Order: sequence, then C-alpha cells, then structure tokens
Amino acid sequence: MNPETLFWIVPLASVVALAFAAVFFFNMKKADEGTDRMKEIAGYVREGAMAYLKQQYKVVALVFVIIAIIFCVMAAFDMQNHIVPVAFLTGGFFSGLAGFIGMKTATYASGRVAQACRDEQDGLNKGLKLAFRSGAVLGLTVVGFGLLDISGWYLILDNTGLIEAEGITKLVEITTIMLTFGMGASLQALFARVGGGIYTKAADVGADLVGKTEYHFNEDDPRNPATIADNVGDNVGDVAGMGADLYESYAGSILASAALGAAAVAGANGTYDEGLKMVMAPMIIGAVGAILSVLGIFIVRTKQGATQSQLMAALNRGINFSGVLIALAAAAVLYLLGIENWLGLWGSIVIGLVVGILIGKVTEYYTSFEYKPVKFIAENATTGPATVIISGIGVGMISTCWPVIFIVLGTIGAYLCAAGEFMFTGENMSMGLYGIGIAAVGMLSTLGLTLATDAYGPISDNAGGNAEMSELGESVRSRTDALDALGNTTAATGKGFAIGSAALTALALLASYIEEIKIAALRFGETFSPSFFSNDLINSAELAKMNIAQFMAKFDVTLMNPKVLLGIFVGAMLSFLFCGLTMNAVGRAAKSMVEEVRRQLSDKEVFEGRKKADYARCVGISTQGAQREMIVPSMIAVIVPIATGLLLGVPGVFGLLAGGLAGGFVLAVFMANSGGAWDNAKKFIETGDASFCGKHTPVHDASVVGDTVGDPFKDTSGPSLNILIKLMSMVSIVTAGLNVAFSLL
Amino acid sequence: MNPETLFWIVPLASVVALAFAAVFFFNMKKADEGTDRMKEIAGYVREGAMAYLKQQYKVVALVFVIIAIIFCVMAAFDMQNHIVPVAFLTGGFFSGLAGFIGMKTATYASGRVAQACRDEQDGLNKGLKLAFRSGAVLGLTVVGFGLLDISGWYLILDNTGLIEAEGITKLVEITTIMLTFGMGASLQALFARVGGGIYTKAADVGADLVGKTEYHFNEDDPRNPATIADNVGDNVGDVAGMGADLYESYAGSILASAALGAAAVAGANGTYDEGLKMVMAPMIIGAVGAILSVLGIFIVRTKQGATQSQLMAALNRGINFSGVLIALAAAAVLYLLGIENWLGLWGSIVIGLVVGILIGKVTEYYTSFEYKPVKFIAENATTGPATVIISGIGVGMISTCWPVIFIVLGTIGAYLCAAGEFMFTGENMSMGLYGIGIAAVGMLSTLGLTLATDAYGPISDNAGGNAEMSELGESVRSRTDALDALGNTTAATGKGFAIGSAALTALALLASYIEEIKIAALRFGETFSPSFFSNDLINSAELAKMNIAQFMAKFDVTLMNPKVLLGIFVGAMLSFLFCGLTMNAVGRAAKSMVEEVRRQLSDKEVFEGRKKADYARCVGISTQGAQREMIVPSMIAVIVPIATGLLLGVPGVFGLLAGGLAGGFVLAVFMANSGGAWDNAKKFIETGDASFCGKHTPVHDASVVGDTVGDPFKDTSGPSLNILIKLMSMVSIVTAGLNVAFSLL
Repeated sequence: MNPETLFWIVPLASVVALAFAAVFFFNMKKADEGTDRMKEIAGYVREGAMAYLKQQYKVVALVFVIIAIIFCVMAAFDMQNHIVPVAFLTGGFFSGLAGFIGMKTATYASGRVAQACRDEQDGLNKGLKLAFRSGAVLGLTVVGFGLLDISGWYLILDNTGLIEAEGITKLVEITTIMLTFGMGASLQALFARVGGGIYTKAADVGADLVGKTEYHFNEDDPRNPATIADNVGDNVGDVAGMGADLYESYAGSILASAALGAAAVAGANGTYDEGLKMVMAPMIIGAVGAILSVLGIFIVRTKQGATQSQLMAALNRGINFSGVLIALAAAAVLYLLGIENWLGLWGSIVIGLVVGILIGKVTEYYTSFEYKPVKFIAENATTGPATVIISGIGVGMISTCWPVIFIVLGTIGAYLCAAGEFMFTGENMSMGLYGIGIAAVGMLSTLGLTLATDAYGPISDNAGGNAEMSELGESVRSRTDALDALGNTTAATGKGFAIGSAALTALALLASYIEEIKIAALRFGETFSPSFFSNDLINSAELAKMNIAQFMAKFDVTLMNPKVLLGIFVGAMLSFLFCGLTMNAVGRAAKSMVEEVRRQLSDKEVFEGRKKADYARCVGISTQGAQREMIVPSMIAVIVPIATGLLLGVPGVFGLLAGGLAGGFVLAVFMANSGGAWDNAKKFIETGDASFCGKHTPVHDASVVGDTVGDPFKDTSGPSLNILIKLMSMVSIVTAGLNVAFSLL
Repeated sequence: MNPETLFWIVPLASVVALAFAAVFFFNMKKADEGTDRMKEIAGYVREGAMAYLKQQYKVVALVFVIIAIIFCVMAAFDMQNHIVPVAFLTGGFFSGLAGFIGMKTATYASGRVAQACRDEQDGLNKGLKLAFRSGAVLGLTVVGFGLLDISGWYLILDNTGLIEAEGITKLVEITTIMLTFGMGASLQALFARVGGGIYTKAADVGADLVGKTEYHFNEDDPRNPATIADNVGDNVGDVAGMGADLYESYAGSILASAALGAAAVAGANGTYDEGLKMVMAPMIIGAVGAILSVLGIFIVRTKQGATQSQLMAALNRGINFSGVLIALAAAAVLYLLGIENWLGLWGSIVIGLVVGILIGKVTEYYTSFEYKPVKFIAENATTGPATVIISGIGVGMISTCWPVIFIVLGTIGAYLCAAGEFMFTGENMSMGLYGIGIAAVGMLSTLGLTLATDAYGPISDNAGGNAEMSELGESVRSRTDALDALGNTTAATGKGFAIGSAALTALALLASYIEEIKIAALRFGETFSPSFFSNDLINSAELAKMNIAQFMAKFDVTLMNPKVLLGIFVGAMLSFLFCGLTMNAVGRAAKSMVEEVRRQLSDKEVFEGRKKADYARCVGISTQGAQREMIVPSMIAVIVPIATGLLLGVPGVFGLLAGGLAGGFVLAVFMANSGGAWDNAKKFIETGDASFCGKHTPVHDASVVGDTVGDPFKDTSGPSLNILIKLMSMVSIVTAGLNVAFSLL
C-alpha cells in the first residue's frame, strides 16, 4: 500500500485519541462531587496544584525562551536549521500541555472517585471505572498530542519549501529536524519530573516525618498541615511529571526510529520510496497502537462486586488484549507498507514488547511483598532502621542485574532481526540500530493504555486523601485503599516500560547524532577540522557518504581514545551528581517543611483539630523549594553535553552519552527498585502475616525510615534519570553544529 | 647510565625495605606488653585474627589451585604462556604474605601501644611512634615484597631461556607475562578486601546495634560479646585487607607501565635499548620511592608532650618530605636513564602525585567535620534518621564530581606530557598511555610511608579497645583516642591515592589487553577469525604490527558497535551487583551477630559483667559469615570478563572494562565518601559545638543509623570496587587467549 496513504492514519489516530480524552474528561466532570467538605478539600488540592503549575511554567517558559534565542543565534550562523527554534518550542509546549490537562483531570477526578466509592452497593467498581477513565485522559492526551505534533511537523516540512534537499536526503533532513522537537519535550519533561519530584517528596517526607512518626497521625489526617501539599504533590509529580515524561519517551522513540530509518536507507543508497516506508513505519505503528489502546480502555470493566483479583484481572485483560492486537497489527502495517524485511522488523517490535514486560516483571519481583526481596528487607527491620537501609540498598543494587541482561539480549535480538542476518557488521549497523529504535516504539505502542493504569494510581491515592480529610469513614477509605493498592502493582509494569524504552531510545539517538554531525558539516562548508590542534581536514561531502563504522573510525571514536574514555567517566559521574543534587534538594525542601509542620502543630488548637491548619503555607514551601532547586540539576543536563562537545569533540560526546546512558540506566533501576522495595516492606509490616508485623511498633518505625529514604529514590531522582539520559543525547544532536564549528583538543 | 646497572636499585630497595620492616617489627616486639589483663585481651584478638586468616587462606588457596589448573590447561593448548600459572601463584602468595605479616604486627602492636599510652609523661608521643612504626612494617613489607617479586621475575624471564623471542619483542613478552602475577595479587586482594570487609562490618554493625543502641554501652565495653570480633575485624579488614589491596595497586601500576612502555617502543619500531629504559623507569622510580619512604619514616618524630596539631604536622612533614624528594629523584632517574622526553615523563609523574593529593583533599572536604558537607548531614540528624540517610547519599553522590574532573584532567595532562605534543593522535597513543601508567606509579611511589599512616589507624583503634577492655582509665583512653583521630585524617589522603591509582592503572591496563591479544594471536596461528559468524580472517602477523588506533579499527571497538555498548552496560551493572551482594552479605552476617549478642546479653549475669561474654562465638559467626559470603561476589569478577569475552569478543571486553572502570570508580567514590561523611557527622554530634550536639540524644541516635549504614559503604563495598575494576582487566588480559580461540558473535 502507498505509505503516503497509510500515513493519514497518524493524524486520524491523534484525533481519535484526543476525542476520547475529551469524552472521558467531560463524563468525569458530570459525576457527583460529593459533600461540601469534599468539594472544599478537592478545591484546596486543585488550587495548590494549579498555583504550582503556573509558577513552574513561568520558570520553564523563561528557560525555553533563552534557549530558543541561543538556537536562533546558532541558526543565524548556519550552525543549525532555521526551523529548529520553532520545533523546539512546540515540543516543549505540547509536553507541558499534556501534563497540564492530565493534572487538571486528576484534580477534578479524585474527589469524585471518593464520592463514587461511597456507594455501598457498587462503590469499588464505580470508583475503579471513574479513576481509570480519568487516568485514560492523560494517556490519550499524551498519545494524541504526540501523534499530532509528529504528523503536523512532518506535513509542514514535507509540503512547504522549508527543506531544500530532494529525495532521500530530504527525508533525512526532515526527520533530523523533527528530533529537535524531541529536545523541547525532553527539557520540559525533565523540569516537570525534577520540579514535581522535589515538590511531592518534600511534602511527603515532611508530612510523614512529623505527622506519622512524631505525632502518630494516620495518613492524610486533616490536622496535619502538610496533608494538602502531599496530595498536591501526587498530582504535580505523578501526573503532570509522568505525563510530560512519557510524552517525551513516546515522541522520542518514534522520532529517533524515523531518523534512523531514513539514515539507514540513505546510507545504503536506497530510494526515496524505500526511505519513506522506514520513516512511516514507526509513526503508523504508534497510531495503530493509539487506536487499539482506546479499544483496550473499553475492555476494562468488571462485574458488580468484583474482588480485588478480579479487578486486577480486568486491568490485565485490557493490557494483554491491546498488547496482542498491537503485535498482530504491527505485522500487518509492516507488510502493507511493503517493507522487504517486514518479518525481521516485526521481530524487533515483538522483542521490544517482551523486554518491556520482562523488565516490569523483574521490577514487580523486587518491589512486591509477595516475593523474597521485600520480605528480606522487612525482616531486617527487626534489627532497626540501619539494617533496613543496608538491605534495601543491597536489594536495589542486585536488582539491576536482570534488567541489564534483558536490555542487552533485547538489543542484540532487535538488531539482528532488523539486520536480517545473524551477524554484526559495519554494513548492517544502520538497519540494526533502526531495529533497536523500532523495538522502543513497540514497547511504547500501547502507551495510551499503560499510562492510564499509571495515572489512575495517584487519582485513587488522592481520592483516599479526600475521603480521610472529609471524614467519610472506614468503609469508604478501605475502598479507595483497595483501588490504590491495585495501582501500585500496575505501576511496576509502567516503570519497566519507561526505563526500558529510555535505554533503547537513547541507544538509537546515538546514531542520530552521527547524522546530525554529517548534516551540520555539509552546512558548515566543504571541509572542516575535527579539532583546533589538528592538521587533519575532513571533507564534508566524503563524511556524508560514510557509513557508521567508517564515521566512527574517521573520528577515532574507539575505546582507547582518551577523549572517549574520559567522556564515559564524566557521563557516569553526571548521573550520580544529578541524583545527589536532587536528593539534597528534597532533603532541604523537606527540612523546611518539617520545621513548618512542627511549628504549626506546636499550637495545641491545631493539634487537637479545633483550629484549621494553614495548608497554603505548606503548599507555598513546597512550591518555592521545588522551583529553586530544579534549575541547577536540569541545566547541568543541558550544559555538560555542550561543554563536552566543545572540549573533547565528537569522541568526547560519544563517551559522555554512552557513559551517561549505561551509568544512568543502572542507577535509575537501582533507585527505583530500592525505593519501591522499601515502600512495600513497610506495607508488608503494616498488613503482613509475619510475627514482627503490626503498626506503631519499633519494627514499623524502622520500616518507615526506609520508606522515607525511598521516596526521593523512586519518585524524584530515579525517574528523572530516564529523562536525563535522553535529554543529553537530544542536546548533543541539536547542538552538533557547535561541535563541527569548534573543538578544542 | 646503563639501565641494566640502575636496575639493581630495585632488588636493593626491596632488601632495604624488608630489612627495616624486620627492624621495626622486632623493636616493637621488645616493647612492654602491659598487665596480664592486657595480654589476655591482646591474645584473644590475635587468636581470632589468626583463626580467621587461616580459614581465609584455606578457601583462597583452593580457589587459586583451581584457577592455576585451568591456566595450566590453557597453557597446554597454547592459549597462554607456560609460565603464567606459576607467576599467578607467586602474585597471590606475596600479596597474602604481606597482609599476613602486617596483621601479625598489628595484633602484637596494639596492646603495646596501649601500654605505651599509660606513660603519664610521654604517653602520646611514645604511642604515636610505636603505632606508626608498627604501621610502617606493613608499608615496607608491601613495598619490599612488591619490588622483590617484580625484580625476581624480571631477572628470571630475562636471563633464562623461558622466553624465546629476541630484542624488543622479548621485552614485550616479559612484561606482559609479568602482568599475570598482577592477576594473582588482584585476586588475593579482592578476597582479602571482601572477606575482611564483611568480617569487620558484620562485627562492627552487630556490636553497635545491640551494644550501643539498645544497651547504651560505650565502644569496646568488655560486656559486649561482639567487642573482640569488632577488634579482630579492624585487623583482618583494615590491615590484612588493605595490605593485600595496596600490594596489588603498587605492583599493578609498575607492571602495567612497564608493559605499556615496551609496547610503545615496539609499536614505534624502537630498539631493545630504548624499550629497556621505558621498562626500567617505573621499577626504578618505585625502588627509589621505597628508599625515600624509609627516610620519611625516620623523620616522623615529635617533641615530648606535643599537641594534636603538632603530631599531625609531624606526620605531614614525613609525607611532604618524601613527596618532594621522590619528585626530584624521579627527574634524576629519568634523566640518568637517558630517556629522550625525560621532562615530559617527569611531568606525568608529578601530575600523578598532584592528582592523588587533590583527590585526597576532596575526600577530606567531603568527609571531615571541619567542612560544610558533614555539618549539613549532622544538621539533618535533627529531623531523624531518614534525613541523615538522604543527605548522606546526596553528599556522597555530589562528591563524585571533583575526583572525576581531577582524573580526567590528570589523565589528559599525563598523556600529553608523555606524548610530548599538545595533541591526541593515533601515533602518540602508546606513549600517552605509558604516561598515564607512570602517573599512577608516581602517585604510589611513596606508598611505604602513606601505607604506614594508614595501617597506624587500626592499630591505634585496637589499642583503644585494649585500654577500654583492660579498664585502664579515662586518661589512657583519651590518648589512644587522640591517636585514632589522627589516623582518620591521614586515612582520607590514603583513600585518594588508592582510588586514583586504581583508575589510572585500570586505564593503562586496557592497553595491555591489546598487547596480550596480539601475542595470543601470534601464538595461536597465522590467521584467526575474530568471531564464529564471520568470513573475515585476521592475519596474526599483520595484527602484531598495528598501532592501537589501527587495532581498535580492525576489531571495530567503536562506540556504535552494539557489542561495545552492551559491554559498557554490563560493566556498569556489575559494579552495582557486586556492591549489592557485599552489602547484603554484611547485612546477613550482621543479623546473625545481632541475634547472638542479644541472646548473650539477655543473660543478666553477662549484662552486669559478672559472667564473661562468649567472645569466641561471635568471632566464629563473623568468620563463617565472611567465608560463606565472599565467594560469589569475588568469582563474579573472574567469570564475567571471561564470559563476556566468549560471547561478545574483543569489543565486548573493551566495553565491559570501560563501563566497569567508569561506573566502578564513581560508585566507589560515592560509597567511600558517604560512609566517611556519616561517620564524622556522628563524631561531630558527639563532640561538636552546635546546639544539637551531645551523646545519647535522639539526634545522636539518628546519626548512629547513618554511621552504621556507612560502615559497609566505606569499608566493604567501596574499597573492594577499587580492586574489582583492576581485577577484571587482569582477568581479561590473562585469558585473552580464549578470546582469540573462541568467540560467539
């Protein structure tokens, strides 16, 4: 079938996804809001969340404008295509918009979910459906905007005179420029994740340390002044932050694959038509996945009075159904596109899906209290907080083993399938890398649905908060707790997809950097020097014709080049520095929060509930803390790749990206899993059946320390690393022109 | 001057160092042992330590025999030189012997140091001198055996008919074979560090958690059943473990540089004489450093009744004196050897010394309570243990930044100085790498002295333990405490040298791997296939003539080769896996210890001191725990490089080593500094002047949690990583023949 005809599925899918998002949103708005007290609480949370987002977007907008100006200057000096600054801004805009809509939905939904759970007959089922469909708003908005941005830019660049090149070269240029909008999305995502992560954990840690540990309040006790901030945090961190994050992953994997596909065909002297098929494939698979996700959402429904495991089965049915369908549909798409090695590429996609699922399973094994590792940590609580921390760190570090093995095997498999032969050679490298990219697309193709199950978690959590603060009673709270628990399990799978796709996408982006260097060299002039202190001159036209292996040899990007090795060192260090900065940021912000909560609770009237706590002040502390603290770590991710490029040239940048990718991936898995394991070790001690279980015992207190330490691990530093590793690649790609124009050594 | 004449300085220096070690040992033995109670306590510790070491060496001997047999088989199939198994064994033997002698000395010395401190007039000074000179026994033994082993093997290989090659090729073969004995030393060191580290921290954590936290005993209270095990631990971990570790670093840096020097000259088609100078230089500089260290030791003496800062100044005077002298002497050696670019190489050596000092300073900044980071952690103790942990992890992660920058700048500097031009090219790469190796030699040249200041720490610590258990009174204990505190500061510098030299040596070892592949290829046959599924055939003779850049291009060891990238992933993961396993090992062993201590103290007679605690049982628990737990992590370091070589070939091994080096270095700095910072945050709260300071408060308890978590960070997992990154390189080098003979992809 003609690829250009099939392409129209992409904007169509975008419209379908956005339309259903709108339907779910307005249906949710129609649901009952509950009592005045419930409305009041929901109002506080909504106000706090919006105030935060407003402040956040102000700061981010400023950074975006500055960077866009720098890009304009670079474009003026021909170091970059002139469309880059605009593309950069749209990526950031849609990423932020997706987060905003998701959060708006979540803050409207949570009170209504609590109200739905008040139905003694069918509360659990009603609550599930409402929370899940509200979560689907985020999922479908992310997917919809992603496809809109991609198809829109493609149409503009393809049909206007903005790109002068012709034939396959045109495709290469179009897809490489489109990566720039990925950088906008990445940067927005990093700010959202870091800022939101600091916000939510400062509030959470502050609320827990004083409220739970010192005053033995329950979760969400309305007397705790940090309660509202804690609930706001779930929204800004887990909804808006995650939305922006996965928007970036989704768009990034499609864009990287498209760019690789064009480059692979161009490298093999293929035709425009062959290239077009490769460029279209990831977009169309994404689009088909979006449509199937909508179908999957409708499949999630249960009988009245379903048990917890039936609810889980309902969710899983939706996910499995969409997963199998997308696998079949992908085969059809590749076949219809008339791609010669369609079966091989299909193999890559299936491998991507399987690796995502496997990493999710490993995450579940290491973080669920059904299994040995979490029980081991819980047992270590009997000897105090120190052994909880030691064992949690130990478990988290060990847990990095299998995800790395899966990524390694998956990458090998995806490469070889796409290459169509059981061998790694210089010639098949471009196609092999395309296979790795499209594996990431496969992994994320059902994002509309998996993100719905993710976003549903914080909505249920907030519903519980609303129920507690509105004093709706035990039975309502137990239902919202059941919904929340369900979300924790599905979140493990979601994390597997997020980190797995980040690794694959970042691997694919390495190859895009090569293409961008080639394009920048052609733009720069006939020849250029690879470094200041070199008599060597590289001919741009010759460079453009090189395949990847030749390019790497030309720039000597081998592992004995000190510039490469040093880049790897810096990359590995950067992940740690970034985590250290964000950990300390949470620590500092949490400390101010603790002091404020202690101050307010020292007022006896507040403690006894006779005087209303000053929630707004705590919201303000978290907001300011997050805004102040997010700038430095985020800017490091932008500045270091540029500085490395200027100082160590192309080999240094490759080293930086590879070191950052490997180090960041492992560190991210470690932090996410340690954090998750501590969280559930605490839950096991609260609800489990071992002899040492029970609340408000020294053993439980020890486990709370683990949980508190785990909070910034799993919700601030860990997930931000996923974005960091991709953003560094994106920055390097977009500023490749600087590397060509200057280099010091 | 004739290099062969100058060479005789090496065995001479070995004899000098060993002779002075013997003098210091017998002088120490002559000192007064104190009261019967003191002798009894010292006897327990000595017995426990020896029992442990006996058990340890049994297990290690078994592993060594198995590996030696495998090497014999490989040698029989011509995959390895026939001398390798023997060289491997001698490396392990001397490494273990150095640790054994150091520990024997320490266990004899500590009681005598306590006795010396009883002198009301001059106790502090006498204690310092005795402890320091006992520490010097370890320092000089390590250096002496190192030089003995190196010069002995060199003489054997040079003068017997074992090496058939002639001219410069002979030098390349000799030096590459000698690296094998580095593998023996590395493996012994890893077992010593891991086993000793698990032992000491299981005992320490166990003793602290129950004794200090639950029963509020003081450190080393004789009623605490784990006290003896804790004191034994200092000896097996911090003396025997550190001795084996630094023996390995010392020998490794000299051997790697010698091998690189020979290869560099061979690659440039240089003569035997030119090569000989390069091979001799690191050995002779090491020898001169050993002699100057002895001089430095004699400089460390103070006036009677010196203050703490005067004591510190005395130690520093010795270190600075030796440092400056070695810098001058190195210039003389290089000049006398008649090396053309002697000034450049001297620059590399000085850079090595400076980088070591700078990393030490950074370590001090992040781990001493004089500075902001530790105070920041201490402040975070006011909000409980969770914030102590969060801030400690944050500080540790941030602290990785400067060491990486110093290593990066130092590596660039050492490379360019040795290369003699301000440029990185394929042609000067061999000399540049030689410069990196010789920078590591420079860094470690004063090891005899710096190791003395290191080993003196646990001796003073044990002296304090003896004083406490023998109830010698406050004033004696305060003197031993003062000695101990002094040791903590110098230890920071020692750590800087240990980790800095590990990174530089490992970088240099990467190049040795190339040489070994070339030699193995020649031994294997005229041609060989780089992989099973390749039609490509590599000509061994052509390969042998390639320079590093050509070699890397031939094997496609570029950063876009998936095998390289996957190797980097596995390498980075391996550091985490290794740390996770050792952390959990400590956790498990500590848990048994806690249970045993609790059991014994539940007996009221033991608690009240009327019945003697069963020390031997606690010693037994630590011994068994350490033996059981050390095998798996240690064997991973051996098996993974071999498996990677078989599966992913030469590119995969390079990726593994680079990923392991960068990831391991950063992780090691993080863990060492977090651990040190927690330790001193606790000390600051105990002795500092902030409003929240004081013992046995909730703030203090929170800081004890940090200290306990930090114990395995800084004394088990962190220092073991230094060895891990070098051992993996060593294993790859020694088994390079397997890579040539087989490879799967």
